[in-house]
Amino acid sequence: MTHRLPSPGAALVGVDVGGTKVAVLVVSPDGRAIGKAVAPSSTAGGDALIAVIESTVLSALEMAQLPLRDVAMLGVGIPGRVDPGSGHVELALNLNLSGFALSERLEDRLGRPSVIENDVRAAAFGLHARGITTPATDLAYLAVGTGIAAGLVLDGHLYRGARGLAGEIGHVIIAPGGERCGCGQRGCLEAEASGLAIGRRAEAGVLDGQKTSLRELAGSSISARDVYEAAAQGDPLGLAIAEHVGRRLASAVHLLLMTCDVERVFIGGGVSHAGEAFARPLRSAFETLRSVSRTARELLRPDVIEILPVDAEPGVWGAVAIAAEALKRLRAEGAPEIESDSGSGLPAPSK
Amino acid sequence: MTHRLPSPGAALVGVDVGGTKVAVLVVSPDGRAIGKAVAPSSTAGGDALIAVIESTVLSALEMAQLPLRDVAMLGVGIPGRVDPGSGHVELALNLNLSGFALSERLEDRLGRPSVIENDVRAAAFGLHARGITTPATDLAYLAVGTGIAAGLVLDGHLYRGARGLAGEIGHVIIAPGGERCGCGQRGCLEAEASGLAIGRRAEAGVLDGQKTSLRELAGSSISARDVYEAAAQGDPLGLAIAEHVGRRLASAVHLLLMTCDVERVFIGGGVSHAGEAFARPLRSAFETLRSVSRTARELLRPDVIEILPVDAEPGVWGAVAIAAEALKRLRAEGAPEIESDSGSGLPAPSK
Repeated sequence: MTHRLPSPGAALVGVDVGGTKVAVLVVSPDGRAIGKAVAPSSTAGGDALIAVIESTVLSALEMAQLPLRDVAMLGVGIPGRVDPGSGHVELALNLNLSGFALSERLEDRLGRPSVIENDVRAAAFGLHARGITTPATDLAYLAVGTGIAAGLVLDGHLYRGARGLAGEIGHVIIAPGGERCGCGQRGCLEAEASGLAIGRRAEAGVLDGQKTSLRELAGSSISARDVYEAAAQGDPLGLAIAEHVGRRLASAVHLLLMTCDVERVFIGGGVSHAGEAFARPLRSAFETLRSVSRTARELLRPDVIEILPVDAEPGVWGAVAIAAEALKRLRAEGAPEIESDSGSGLPAPSK
Repeated sequence: MTHRLPSPGAALVGVDVGGTKVAVLVVSPDGRAIGKAVAPSSTAGGDALIAVIESTVLSALEMAQLPLRDVAMLGVGIPGRVDPGSGHVELALNLNLSGFALSERLEDRLGRPSVIENDVRAAAFGLHARGITTPATDLAYLAVGTGIAAGLVLDGHLYRGARGLAGEIGHVIIAPGGERCGCGQRGCLEAEASGLAIGRRAEAGVLDGQKTSLRELAGSSISARDVYEAAAQGDPLGLAIAEHVGRRLASAVHLLLMTCDVERVFIGGGVSHAGEAFARPLRSAFETLRSVSRTARELLRPDVIEILPVDAEPGVWGAVAIAAEALKRLRAEGAPEIESDSGSGLPAPSK
């Protein structure tokens, strides 16, 4: 590694790269959020994305009134397959990236060391590392947005799997013979319960002639948010879709618990921000599973499952957490000019 | 721990406790199988089971011409929930055991140290530790017998999960609205593809009036073996059930790969011993998944999946592997009278 070693007590920067926006958080050595910025993302390839990240980081640092040289480490969470070792994004379809040396390119521009990770995995690690709730040695973070994926922390370590694909449960077949998925299969979790699937289901319901207030939005692509707003107003199609999604996500949580026996499952992502219209059918699906099965009663205890509050921002805090972890490793490698490890600790929850 | 320390170079004994039989294997310090014995199991409770294990171990040692004092460690794999730390069987429904101090009771009778583990988990660890094939840092062992469960080795370690239930995928809902399971749910993997489920499906097919040679066995409980024998003869009902099971098990393997991203999935257990009648529909279900999905093509590569040969005996070798591991730990705790670690190594595959 050719990283210049950061000075003790320096700040951490977390970057959450999505298909629609790039969010940046600057965290002080004592774990406080001291700067934030959000900008529209770019799907025009590597150069454009690097430019967006750079300017958003600089905006957040300006808000924090912190010079770039005081940043000890940047952490970047990115939706796709990444190799944290080399700092390469292997494949990020939504961002039009493949085989892109993100870490190196970013370091060239900003002159500070950086570390990258899959976004959902970083978020899972952040939930663990920040000890947001009771410390869970084994946890899963289920991100329900445009797509669906999970991140796993097992035995206290971020678990990546043999090919860096652990937790990619979006294409687990949750309903054999169900909805056709973009991947070619039928009944994938993502085809049944993702934000995209929810919108498609609503369009299909309208086409099918179902009574619904969503009719007026049809054709201009109904969003998951539209569906949950309709459900909150008692719209029959909205309610039916919310219930369907609740059942499928309950199955997914059940599957994560049965397969990996994690202590906690955190649910986040855009779709989960729909409030009670999202939460109620999910709770009721869990209740149904519990009512029929002793195993489910034991595994699906209410305190095991938590829908993250909208302001939890697991993505950007996860990016900060992987930066903190990378910094800790760098310092443990024992550079003599680092006298103290103050500031290398993990930031505390943002509360 | 109050274990008497074993002398270097001593043998290991693996005990695989099942609902129908107890199998014992004695392995020499250099990893050769030198004694074996099998006896009918007992479901009459702890005392009876201890008696069976004791006499079967003594038979196997007699065959090995080895005195009991030369046994360095016993490993016991048992179907159910166990606490390896305390040596207690917390719950083993098929054996009528709960809260049973198996390790302690066995040590009282045999005077040798022992370690216990869930049978499927021990088998998974054995497949990893013995390096039977190319070393897999992340592997799953899917045991398809009377019931269905998986064992997981992740990042090179046996993964137990928060409650010791990791890999208990028998009650993952693989087919919503499918067969009613004993656990209360519908469409559990176990209700769709276990040995018991296969027999029940055949009985139902006969009752339903389907044309089948299995008709003459109906009422006297058709076994999975009967079904696969009928399938091998071209019986339409047998073939249909074999195909159904193949599809469901392919989903289960797919799920393990998508969730845990293991390098290899080994399939074993009684049902898997039906040869081509079992293997062909499973291969064909994988082929179907691959043909529709790029993700499946990448994850379900033919070399990822292996049906273990009938003589692989993963249960008893897994029990030996956990004994070897426990012995290694005991010696690493550094008892001064142990001069050498010869014989504490893991036995090589039985070939």
